Amino acid sequence: MKRRITIAKSSGFCLGVQRAVEMALESAKKYGEVQMLGEIVHNETVIEILKNAGVRIVKSLDEVDSAKPVLFRSHGTPKGIRETARRSGLKVIDATCPLIIHIHKVAQKLEADGRTVIVIGDKGHDEVTAIVSDLANSIVVSNIQDAESLPRIRKAGAVAQSTQDIEQVGKIMSKIVEKVEDLRFINTICNPTRDRQRQVIKLASSNDIMLIIGSRTSANTKRLAAIASAINPKTFLIQNVDELNPDWFEKARTIGISSGASTPAESIEEVKKKIARFSS
Amino acid sequence: MKRRITIAKSSGFCLGVQRAVEMALESAKKYGEVQMLGEIVHNETVIEILKNAGVRIVKSLDEVDSAKPVLFRSHGTPKGIRETARRSGLKVIDATCPLIIHIHKVAQKLEADGRTVIVIGDKGHDEVTAIVSDLANSIVVSNIQDAESLPRIRKAGAVAQSTQDIEQVGKIMSKIVEKVEDLRFINTICNPTRDRQRQVIKLASSNDIMLIIGSRTSANTKRLAAIASAINPKTFLIQNVDELNPDWFEKARTIGISSGASTPAESIEEVKKKIARFSS
Repeated sequence: MKRRITIAKSSGFCLGVQRAVEMALESAKKYGEVQMLGEIVHNETVIEILKNAGVRIVKSLDEVDSAKPVLFRSHGTPKGIRETARRSGLKVIDATCPLIIHIHKVAQKLEADGRTVIVIGDKGHDEVTAIVSDLANSIVVSNIQDAESLPRIRKAGAVAQSTQDIEQVGKIMSKIVEKVEDLRFINTICNPTRDRQRQVIKLASSNDIMLIIGSRTSANTKRLAAIASAINPKTFLIQNVDELNPDWFEKARTIGISSGASTPAESIEEVKKKIARFSS
Repeated sequence: MKRRITIAKSSGFCLGVQRAVEMALESAKKYGEVQMLGEIVHNETVIEILKNAGVRIVKSLDEVDSAKPVLFRSHGTPKGIRETARRSGLKVIDATCPLIIHIHKVAQKLEADGRTVIVIGDKGHDEVTAIVSDLANSIVVSNIQDAESLPRIRKAGAVAQSTQDIEQVGKIMSKIVEKVEDLRFINTICNPTRDRQRQVIKLASSNDIMLIIGSRTSANTKRLAAIASAINPKTFLIQNVDELNPDWFEKARTIGISSGASTPAESIEEVKKKIARFSS
């Protein structure tokens, strides 16, 4: 049986992650070592490569050796930590994704306009935590229940975490409008995320099987898998090539593949090659 | 069998209609006659009373006797007609509901801010037609399909027709957010409408039968009936007391009653009295 494997055009690293990984590798080379505050991406393979190149993961600024630079990763870094690093005179390499910096600015502008800022995103997610740290007052809304329990607000501004599913954000917004008299919503879901989600919808609906490759700790990966599953029940989320199960492919003629924003293109290639080797 | 009849607190004329009817009656008295441009309310009984008091209905400015004043009704009047009346030196009595004037102003402000204005409302409804007449460019969105067929817009502002159902507006907004990068929504659904809808929801869920009294040509009346029907299948829309059917009440112990914004309190009282007279 001949199988057709289609890989989503928008797969592999997103630009923000690509940029951050490159900055980490360059800095490690230039300074002998760079100290990364938290894991730059939720992907074990990538972390391993970075470690071998001289990127050391530190959990907090307390662990930092002030002789070597500190790298702020793509998700963004809370205000308190940014200020402590500045006060301590640390050399900082800021690899925050420019699209996420844009969300911080937009949210602050909405606040300056006298609006209560609503961040539609995952509570506790690093990106959301950093956005909120730049605001005096904000409310994180993760789901419809959160939106329904909002108080009445006269003026609010809403932004979305860059990797949210727009359809889910729409459902949340349908409830937020009931609570706010004057609401401004800046759609900060990044274009790469939109493209990725659109292509997953397309692939999941036109293939027998849909594979999403990425870490189970990655919110954007899980979101892609949820979007695909709603369309195609034969959707599988795998962390890497080792999790592939030949049984899935028994009757499958067409296979679609996409990945989370922190999954390198190499992981996708490995999966593709292994599927091609399955006897049919 | 003892029946309990509960009349919604927010029923009978809304304030805007009450005010317009009073202005019409006062002007007719003061000037001997007043010429009303279109029907002031979608209610046959009220129109009859007004006619008898000297309020003459004209379909367009061409029919107007310039010696007598013209009354602009509560829904608002299109810009072209307002300007023609001014140019012709007609005496105008403007009974436009202040809350609807507010929507016109908000929509114009959104347009001045460089936003494409989206009016969430019923296409062809007099209120919507008048709002749109004050804008250079606008889009009327009546349902989810309209929202889905919107083009991509960078900056948009949205307002709602004063008597829309907020839940339905929320559903429409969930689709609009997918199309607009920077969206400002001013919730212009008037408080009397919200109160009326909230009370209908409450009454429809706590009574065996729900009656909505009002004209079948009134959009806000039909909306109340739709809201009630979704909760209580034993919802009946009646134009007046003559349409009451004793069969509906056979097993009913509790009855909730509300009305559209153009239904006078007297019509509700008549219905209540007639139900009380049904043998059980």
